[in-house]
Amino acid sequence: MALKDIAKMKRNDAGISTALGILKQTFGEAFQTGEALREQHAHTTTYIPAQLPDGVLFAKSSDDVQAAVEICAEHKVPIIPFGTGTSLEGGVNAPAGGISIDVSQMNRIISVNDSDLDCVVEPGVTREDLNTYLRDSGLFFPIDPGANASLGGMTATRASGTNAVRYGTMKDNVLSVEAVLPNGRKITTAQRARKSSAGYDLTRLMVGSEGTLGIITQITLKLQGIPQAITGGVCPFPTLDAAVEAVIYTIQMGLPVARIELVNALQMKAMIEYSGLNFEPTPCLFLEFHGTDNGVAEQADLFNEIATELGGGPFKWSAVQEERTKLWKARHDAYWASLGLRPGAKGISTDVCVPISRLADCIRETEADIEEFGLIAPIVGHAGDGNFHVLLLIDEEKPEEITMAESFVERLNNRALAMGGTCTGEHGIGQGKMKFLEMELGGAVDVMRAIKRSIDPDNIMNPGKIFTL
Amino acid sequence: MALKDIAKMKRNDAGISTALGILKQTFGEAFQTGEALREQHAHTTTYIPAQLPDGVLFAKSSDDVQAAVEICAEHKVPIIPFGTGTSLEGGVNAPAGGISIDVSQMNRIISVNDSDLDCVVEPGVTREDLNTYLRDSGLFFPIDPGANASLGGMTATRASGTNAVRYGTMKDNVLSVEAVLPNGRKITTAQRARKSSAGYDLTRLMVGSEGTLGIITQITLKLQGIPQAITGGVCPFPTLDAAVEAVIYTIQMGLPVARIELVNALQMKAMIEYSGLNFEPTPCLFLEFHGTDNGVAEQADLFNEIATELGGGPFKWSAVQEERTKLWKARHDAYWASLGLRPGAKGISTDVCVPISRLADCIRETEADIEEFGLIAPIVGHAGDGNFHVLLLIDEEKPEEITMAESFVERLNNRALAMGGTCTGEHGIGQGKMKFLEMELGGAVDVMRAIKRSIDPDNIMNPGKIFTL
Repeated sequence: MALKDIAKMKRNDAGISTALGILKQTFGEAFQTGEALREQHAHTTTYIPAQLPDGVLFAKSSDDVQAAVEICAEHKVPIIPFGTGTSLEGGVNAPAGGISIDVSQMNRIISVNDSDLDCVVEPGVTREDLNTYLRDSGLFFPIDPGANASLGGMTATRASGTNAVRYGTMKDNVLSVEAVLPNGRKITTAQRARKSSAGYDLTRLMVGSEGTLGIITQITLKLQGIPQAITGGVCPFPTLDAAVEAVIYTIQMGLPVARIELVNALQMKAMIEYSGLNFEPTPCLFLEFHGTDNGVAEQADLFNEIATELGGGPFKWSAVQEERTKLWKARHDAYWASLGLRPGAKGISTDVCVPISRLADCIRETEADIEEFGLIAPIVGHAGDGNFHVLLLIDEEKPEEITMAESFVERLNNRALAMGGTCTGEHGIGQGKMKFLEMELGGAVDVMRAIKRSIDPDNIMNPGKIFTL
Repeated sequence: MALKDIAKMKRNDAGISTALGILKQTFGEAFQTGEALREQHAHTTTYIPAQLPDGVLFAKSSDDVQAAVEICAEHKVPIIPFGTGTSLEGGVNAPAGGISIDVSQMNRIISVNDSDLDCVVEPGVTREDLNTYLRDSGLFFPIDPGANASLGGMTATRASGTNAVRYGTMKDNVLSVEAVLPNGRKITTAQRARKSSAGYDLTRLMVGSEGTLGIITQITLKLQGIPQAITGGVCPFPTLDAAVEAVIYTIQMGLPVARIELVNALQMKAMIEYSGLNFEPTPCLFLEFHGTDNGVAEQADLFNEIATELGGGPFKWSAVQEERTKLWKARHDAYWASLGLRPGAKGISTDVCVPISRLADCIRETEADIEEFGLIAPIVGHAGDGNFHVLLLIDEEKPEEITMAESFVERLNNRALAMGGTCTGEHGIGQGKMKFLEMELGGAVDVMRAIKRSIDPDNIMNPGKIFTL
């Protein structure tokens, strides 16, 4: 069954129509139903067509959210939480219509607690906004999924990115969540203490729930002290295997590397052309070290020893911020660089994550698949976590290319699962990965369904995502 | 309402009687009903009397667990999972009777994956067993709650301990759980990949569920590389405030301290007498640093600067294992040392956890309470997490002492909650902290109840723990 078929759901037209009227009356200009705006709030980077909500509410407070949820609950109308819309698996699509609750105007930073290294934010604050705000505090928020996503959305999808190898994912960096449940009740999942054994871990249940259990209205986040020293650099390797071996040794030695990103030869080619990097198109690792002056130098030296032993190098690294910024800008621009490999194509990003002992195998077999399928599809990976992305460059107008891409993604996921991996390391399930979730966790998905039904018996919170009911 | 009243629950005598017969028939000698054995399997270190199960099954495999759960489910008989019985809040008591499923014989280490720094174990493996097994691998499992607890029990209570400030708690170190649900179905919550965004985080839901959602039959754990160098030492401070300030600066500076344990003056007095430590009875920090040779020396120097600035010191540290072992043995023997402060008394350990900015206030007010109540009650804390323990030395034969202790604990918890803290940083809720969980999380506890009902509609899994239904 193709994704476009899975995504179809029955609409509650009568309820939606009634709710639209009440919402307009209640919220006035903050509630909009214009098509352009609804289009902006519904899209997917998979092959599933956009599915528009029937209206968009710009919530300004948790009270707004609560009032809107109560209206939708009464009339059994779907609610789709919306942050910045950077979801990669159809997370903001509205397969049964309903109301998009846009929290981008809930963007206050409520408190920063220097002594405790934490802060409390509204869900519409983006990660860049937060780091800009923190600039003079000596603190920073480390999770960096690439896009300037909202912290609410990052929480809801359990986002991670380049720094996760050292600082963990959103799972590790959210201390507490305030959320409005489908029945309109507001809960707080935990106090601000650094750890707790007080009951079920509802914080971690909300992190990664993709808006299907409630709307996040406030988040307490861990912060990190800005390290005394940061160095970074790029190290080329003769083969992908050698690069991945270097990652494994680095992790095994306990080197507290802050970033260790794998870029395959094709992706390097694109980045060299797009960003003017002075490297050869061979597999490379992009690294960053955080610590004291001595500590980062020691880390870089130890990594260099590992790389040299594996035939890699020269490892060029620098403590100069401008040089590092250029490298990481190139890494973050990998998507745009890739588009240059096939002008006019759409870039579809898919992700899997495997135990790192299988990472080289998994990428090698995937590269072979790419060649066999005749695809143009560069690879970048958060190698320290075993997580990698394939960017499929597809002509969406050609149905045969979409069919081929779906087959490729299916094989990629089967391969990752067979290696003890997961169908998504950081993008989430959304609409795009539901089939693979079933394959990955089997009966455990029924437990997820039971939890969903117990909290959202009418299935109004982001229905048609993660699993079908 | 006193704890002993909360703990009472209705028994299903008919169902229990039938199940006993079937279990005996099915499991033979592995199923026991002798009183001495049942007593060993039911106890509490709170003031709640022991509540015995009706029988004890020594499970040898997940198939045994599954078969036993099916029998109990059919006859609606309570199941109490049992590891080593080191629970501190009545976790293994059987308030409605039922069957204790003892997993201590499920103690196989199924696999150790060196390249991935993980392992798969059965729940009866203890943390010391695992570290003994790993001795020659260059790897170790860092979580150390003091007791040689089973890894199943540590998972179920979200245990942590002295190393959590660097390595996190069980929440951060469990990659996946296999569990038998109340309906007898076996699920696996995640694959072995380092991170995942695949659906609800059932792993974290099982971690800390205290046996109320299922019996853990297998656990995949993260491991750490043994650091190149370990140093440690003790630093005295003139006041508790100065010691806690030193902790805050240490954390803020991002010093990757592996252990930073606070011992108050009374606890130091007990440890000096019991373990022959050559220190004065003033507040002290016990520290350990993990890293490279240069790294740990640098960390120790930086910490020393912080301590000196706050009037602390001299900070005596050593890389010699024997000296460190003596210090940490003294720290781990704190409980036994304390008993010497009041021979014949029972030691009741209670824990709370607050944001570290409030730790000094919270301990200072608690020390004042101890004096006001005329209690003998030393304090130790995992200060880097804001978590501390008060050991109440109580004559259990005197009801007025129990009443006083209950009042003291109530005030301690109210204080921690008012400071944004939690009623338990690592011991769990069990029977002892149910009231405080309601105070701490309010409506969120109803969400926990809804989840519990959806997975265990007959309330057979460790009933009467965490919350009442």
